[in-house]
Amino acid sequence: MSGLNIWTFDWVPLGDGPRGFVRDLRLRWACEEAGLAYNVRLIGFDDRETNHLDRQPFGQVPYLDDDGLQIFESGACLLHIARKSEILMPRDPVGEAEALQWTIAALNTIEMVSVPWWFLEVTGAKENGLTDWLKGRLGDMERVLNAREWLAAGRFTVADLLMADVLRVTRVRDFGDHPATEAYVKRITKRPSFQKAHRDQIEFYDAADATRGRHGT
Amino acid sequence: MSGLNIWTFDWVPLGDGPRGFVRDLRLRWACEEAGLAYNVRLIGFDDRETNHLDRQPFGQVPYLDDDGLQIFESGACLLHIARKSEILMPRDPVGEAEALQWTIAALNTIEMVSVPWWFLEVTGAKENGLTDWLKGRLGDMERVLNAREWLAAGRFTVADLLMADVLRVTRVRDFGDHPATEAYVKRITKRPSFQKAHRDQIEFYDAADATRGRHGT
Repeated sequence: MSGLNIWTFDWVPLGDGPRGFVRDLRLRWACEEAGLAYNVRLIGFDDRETNHLDRQPFGQVPYLDDDGLQIFESGACLLHIARKSEILMPRDPVGEAEALQWTIAALNTIEMVSVPWWFLEVTGAKENGLTDWLKGRLGDMERVLNAREWLAAGRFTVADLLMADVLRVTRVRDFGDHPATEAYVKRITKRPSFQKAHRDQIEFYDAADATRGRHGT
Repeated sequence: MSGLNIWTFDWVPLGDGPRGFVRDLRLRWACEEAGLAYNVRLIGFDDRETNHLDRQPFGQVPYLDDDGLQIFESGACLLHIARKSEILMPRDPVGEAEALQWTIAALNTIEMVSVPWWFLEVTGAKENGLTDWLKGRLGDMERVLNAREWLAAGRFTVADLLMADVLRVTRVRDFGDHPATEAYVKRITKRPSFQKAHRDQIEFYDAADATRGRHGT
């Protein structure tokens, strides 16, 4: 399969997410920033738990096919794409180390708390035992973002792309005032590349409703 | 600061963890596998929430100083170290993509559930709403490890180092029978490099008790 191919679900439900949040968006966005051409390829949503385990052993999306080289995990796909473009990943050792550490921080320090927090909410846990931990992490991020405009190398990198995507899913305002964090997310998601990637995902799933003759709940 | 310097706490409590589990172990282990010389540098445990925020904005350990280049997040440090040695990270594009995707899977698919699960347990949550999710992820890993010996490139890589470290913390047996996973963890943690790194950490903290004249609870 030639070129960059981003695999994702052919349909997802309407409602409280996931349209505009399916993680293929991160890869679309990265390609838009870097000016890389890409195709979006589709996996059936209905049998998603078992229909692509040979390609993604946890049944997740997205995964990437880059001229036949296959790679899963959105964070790994982002690092793979980022290597193709200095726009996403600085080439000097210090800038590269900064972009790498903040990319991993988004995955393993922020999202490691924010996603399970959200999971407990949507599955109706009576109390959410992760709330204070998440507040602590958001407080750390507020302190960081109060002191700087970008996470790495003094400019936009793949680390900001991922961190902003992680933070926009987290309803930061629900956890108290975080003016620097809110301004950061707002500023970064105003970028034309995010706007295009987001609009493309929403429009794709809206069109899929008509094609498949059904609506999510 | 010359050479590879791994920063960690100068003391941690005895008891149910964290000795033998502080994440500097991942970096010691990686250096041992790759045959890279390293120093262990110390941060005071007592003021850990604020005494190294200029170096690690979440107050975590470890972080790395590589000839003056500073990098935090154990996952990012591992990828940085892995680039120095083909033992940890294959140089061919397919092997490298496999090692990268499984390293990120350990951080963002397994540990993203297993660490918050553990957090809920130790903070005394009445019910742990992450149990079924974690069981699902461990079931996926069991299927993967039932079909192969190593995660990437048909041999030991940094991905196995990290995944085995993530899985050994998770008490896999408490979630049902996972013979392939248990055999995988046992096999990988028998490696002399893990054994040395583990022993060094335990012995260091035992010695720190004597020096500091106190014991954890």
